[in-house]
Amino acid sequence: MGMLQVLGAYLVFLGLLSAQTTASLNGTIPKTYGIVLFRAFDSIDVLGPAELLYFIGQVHKTEIAWISETLDPVTTEPLMAVMNPFNSSVFQKIVPTHTFETAPDLDVLIIPGGAGIRSPYLNNTLKYIRETAPKVKHVITICTGSALAARAGIMNGKKATTNKTSWPNVIPFGPNTTWVPRARWVEDDSGEPPIWSSSGVTAGLDLMFHFVETFYSSENATWISKLTEYVRHTDPDDDPFARNDTIVAPTAG
Amino acid sequence: MGMLQVLGAYLVFLGLLSAQTTASLNGTIPKTYGIVLFRAFDSIDVLGPAELLYFIGQVHKTEIAWISETLDPVTTEPLMAVMNPFNSSVFQKIVPTHTFETAPDLDVLIIPGGAGIRSPYLNNTLKYIRETAPKVKHVITICTGSALAARAGIMNGKKATTNKTSWPNVIPFGPNTTWVPRARWVEDDSGEPPIWSSSGVTAGLDLMFHFVETFYSSENATWISKLTEYVRHTDPDDDPFARNDTIVAPTAG
Repeated sequence: MGMLQVLGAYLVFLGLLSAQTTASLNGTIPKTYGIVLFRAFDSIDVLGPAELLYFIGQVHKTEIAWISETLDPVTTEPLMAVMNPFNSSVFQKIVPTHTFETAPDLDVLIIPGGAGIRSPYLNNTLKYIRETAPKVKHVITICTGSALAARAGIMNGKKATTNKTSWPNVIPFGPNTTWVPRARWVEDDSGEPPIWSSSGVTAGLDLMFHFVETFYSSENATWISKLTEYVRHTDPDDDPFARNDTIVAPTAG
Repeated sequence: MGMLQVLGAYLVFLGLLSAQTTASLNGTIPKTYGIVLFRAFDSIDVLGPAELLYFIGQVHKTEIAWISETLDPVTTEPLMAVMNPFNSSVFQKIVPTHTFETAPDLDVLIIPGGAGIRSPYLNNTLKYIRETAPKVKHVITICTGSALAARAGIMNGKKATTNKTSWPNVIPFGPNTTWVPRARWVEDDSGEPPIWSSSGVTAGLDLMFHFVETFYSSENATWISKLTEYVRHTDPDDDPFARNDTIVAPTAG
């Protein structure tokens, strides 16, 4: 195809996009998202939600701030060699756009999980989460990001879920959290901001589709599911990876 | 948790991992993967397969080479402002590890899609794909990566699928390819190397799970689906986003 045909095809595509714009809830939609990056984050925990926001950005002015301790690229490689027993090199690095000091005011704070949530070197990350969460409109955690949020101290008295395989290792980070063992995702609206937590990795896509449906439009969610050919799980209680644990009651704070 | 507890928990996790190792098909498994990066690639096309390989790397020595024209970070941002009508900043940058000149010999070449496949500035990328494909054991394309592969000239006489929404805009890149409108993924074993192509974005996860099942073990695939809480689509013909197009017959080459 020549360049004119390419451009023409793309304008048709944009035409589809602008049709979606009118269906949105103007005025209430989030504009600025911040995603916290730290060593040994999980790729899809971060880039699953970002994929949906990529398309949302084509119908609404949207910003993602990629926030980390420094502007150095952040790797998915674990800190300890014991966590990479075959000395594989399967990791990638993402470039942050902001540090904790330069991050803009956010509408939505997204906290991913990954092996790195257990690191003893996250004091500044935890401080940023602790200080930022009360100022945003929504907190979203993906996978073991809810355990990182618990380490930061923002999950006391909240209900949440997390990765079901990592469950026994990470729920101790939140002794004052009600951990829900059967949930694709959990919405806790008991305080401000509401905290939405998803189960492991790809469950974050379902949470994020529901977030788009709630704060943009169901047309937007359907449109993005078609573009990404993602078969959504729309019922938060339909959890194929549910654990049999009884709900862990909050202990005294 | 203290550091010893964290390490203990992780060693349990590694114990689970080494149990998986024994079930693998030693000797036939791929070791070196190359993922081609170009401006305006799609995030999940790249990081979906990489997520599975991240876990495979914990049970087999595995390398991913992130290959691009230069070592500069590669952005998902489209080249043309018209493709970002709301001036959103929702893009991220990934750091390549190799250029086309320094890339290692590969067992598997992975070609992602994204808006950037239409770029007129991909001559070196197309040359790399064209020259590398005949030397690898497997070619995998995700989403519109099959159209990029067609642009590179490696899809003549092959059957393949691609993103169903982008279908009319991208299949013209492969006039001598049999495009399959109902397929979660397609395996073409008619020549060497075999070429596996997936439908849009998240269909690449299903292709990759099947690849893991085929060349590593079904235990590995099940283990990773649990860790990522991904509900697999295991039937390549079960395509919820299938088009009604009749199959486009190859035209004279």
